[in-house]
Amino acid sequence: MKNAHAVVMAGGAGTRFWPKSRESIPKQFLSLLGSQTLLQAAFERVRQFIPKNQTWIVSTKDHQSLLAEQIKSLSESHFILEPFGKNTAPCIALASLIVHQHDPDSVLIVLPADHIITNEKRFINICKKAVSLVEEHPDALVTIGIEPSYPATGYGYIQLGKKVPNFGEAFKVKTFAEKPDLEVAQKFYLSDEFLWNSGIFVWRTRTILNYFEELMPDLYDGLMEIRTALNKKNYDKVLERVYRQTRSESIDYGIMEKAGNVMVVKGGFGWSDVGSWDEVYKISSKDSNGNVLKGDIIAKDVSNTYAEASDRMIALVGVKHLVVVDMNDVILICERDQAQDVKWVVEKLKRQKRNQLL
Amino acid sequence: MKNAHAVVMAGGAGTRFWPKSRESIPKQFLSLLGSQTLLQAAFERVRQFIPKNQTWIVSTKDHQSLLAEQIKSLSESHFILEPFGKNTAPCIALASLIVHQHDPDSVLIVLPADHIITNEKRFINICKKAVSLVEEHPDALVTIGIEPSYPATGYGYIQLGKKVPNFGEAFKVKTFAEKPDLEVAQKFYLSDEFLWNSGIFVWRTRTILNYFEELMPDLYDGLMEIRTALNKKNYDKVLERVYRQTRSESIDYGIMEKAGNVMVVKGGFGWSDVGSWDEVYKISSKDSNGNVLKGDIIAKDVSNTYAEASDRMIALVGVKHLVVVDMNDVILICERDQAQDVKWVVEKLKRQKRNQLL
Repeated sequence: MKNAHAVVMAGGAGTRFWPKSRESIPKQFLSLLGSQTLLQAAFERVRQFIPKNQTWIVSTKDHQSLLAEQIKSLSESHFILEPFGKNTAPCIALASLIVHQHDPDSVLIVLPADHIITNEKRFINICKKAVSLVEEHPDALVTIGIEPSYPATGYGYIQLGKKVPNFGEAFKVKTFAEKPDLEVAQKFYLSDEFLWNSGIFVWRTRTILNYFEELMPDLYDGLMEIRTALNKKNYDKVLERVYRQTRSESIDYGIMEKAGNVMVVKGGFGWSDVGSWDEVYKISSKDSNGNVLKGDIIAKDVSNTYAEASDRMIALVGVKHLVVVDMNDVILICERDQAQDVKWVVEKLKRQKRNQLL
Repeated sequence: MKNAHAVVMAGGAGTRFWPKSRESIPKQFLSLLGSQTLLQAAFERVRQFIPKNQTWIVSTKDHQSLLAEQIKSLSESHFILEPFGKNTAPCIALASLIVHQHDPDSVLIVLPADHIITNEKRFINICKKAVSLVEEHPDALVTIGIEPSYPATGYGYIQLGKKVPNFGEAFKVKTFAEKPDLEVAQKFYLSDEFLWNSGIFVWRTRTILNYFEELMPDLYDGLMEIRTALNKKNYDKVLERVYRQTRSESIDYGIMEKAGNVMVVKGGFGWSDVGSWDEVYKISSKDSNGNVLKGDIIAKDVSNTYAEASDRMIALVGVKHLVVVDMNDVILICERDQAQDVKWVVEKLKRQKRNQLL
């Protein structure tokens, strides 16, 4: 474990938590559960088993002040800033390069900042197990797969291959499957052969950089230009030029689905990528009427409802099964089963060019 | 008609239109339908058949600035201000006294400011008919009764007696009945013998003052003290002293139910006392999804909903059958069938002493 580094990915925007999340303050910077933001929770979580000087946060420049505000204890050099987002492959490539320069024998644990993990102890054990797996199989790319608790259509799946000998619940990966429809999801769920793709990865920086060279050579060339500019005056300029030329690509599509030696460690630690207000409702603790009421709220005959007040009071009478999120400039009132349609509202506001609400 | 005076009653508070109505701005000062406030609509309505110098508005001192703001064309002397509200009997007594001093042969049309009347032409005809009835029966108290359109439990009822000879749909009143329960309301509705009590009255000031003397002698004594002080320096002081001593009483209970000679003219002019947000919904014109959406609102899969935005946008997704009223300091989200429970919220806020929200 001594070379294990954590890279918390805190870039990315999203519209599913509008109106609380905005272009300027995406999901990972919000506290959806408890008082910590998702980023703060992710940071504290890895800090329990990774030393601070081996903990890194990668995000985009426009979030620099939010990062500084929310993560006060990390030194500036451990924030890796992309000029702008180009999906996960360039983000992970840049982080791998920088950590590799810092420690050529490093093992990376790459994890998204915007997930919720309820059983931290088990999460930490699984991460440690994945690091040991990489230490024994230095050329493997290891991902953490979640045992499905229902036939989800919102997650990608990983099909298990043969067991890795002498390593408990670790498997070779047979295939990656994109988000399935409900019928396929039900098959996956019943087969015991599929896990959810959590987007948490463990590998040596040396290994992943080799894979970038092999499978994404254009990105790798750019990375080499960036390496030359590291710690030089023109770093920002080079970084920005390379990013402009780089294709937006996910690590799953760019590397994982094509790489030869991919393994998965089975994890069960109360994981959710909290994709909607309805999911926040589902994983929050509820009162005796099944309500989650945050802030100044008066309720009569209200049930199974998520409501969050900000500056002013919300009075709820006789309503059921709603999501209510109040902000200074807008209030969302949404049937819980239609929480995915929040995206539709955001699209509509975009078309109307109402940028101050986005 | 030459001695006919209109008295628009614009006192009274109410909690049923919270959070739009507040203690400082009750229902009659709100525009619930169209752009005019209910008071403005009531004033314009009587102005179509009563000259301005025979039109009076009676309200309480605390609403003086709202009155001046909303009714700019009426001279100050035609606003009759009570020091505070004591229900309709003292209010009508004071207005009767003042109009009687102005014109001893006056016939008063007394009407609440907070009702909605959709067929103004018929309303005016009925009022004229009631005035003629009083002119022929100078000792009668005439009330206007509304033909019930459903078995309402929210209105008082008037039971019809014998027809008044030679006067079309005018009747002696047999009894007044308080708000009935549903079973009784259904009987009333089917019997053809009962009308809704609209709270619109027509009588000579001379006659009603005699009735006050006979049936509410304490109030009448106070009234005589006020008369002595009229146009004198100590008027305000006397008025306030008398009001402090006066019992709070409705004209229905204090006079109408006990008086000997009460008649009713049958009216059908699209009348509602708009007792709840649900009733505002019902009488508003709706879009093709049955929605009434006022202000900056984005809606997807929304039906049968009343929503009113003020300063901020409201995004509605997948909701049905709601009342949503947004104000600066509070938002109400209420199942339409439970719109009466808005009172419960107001009571709760009172108990919590949250006066700034009342």
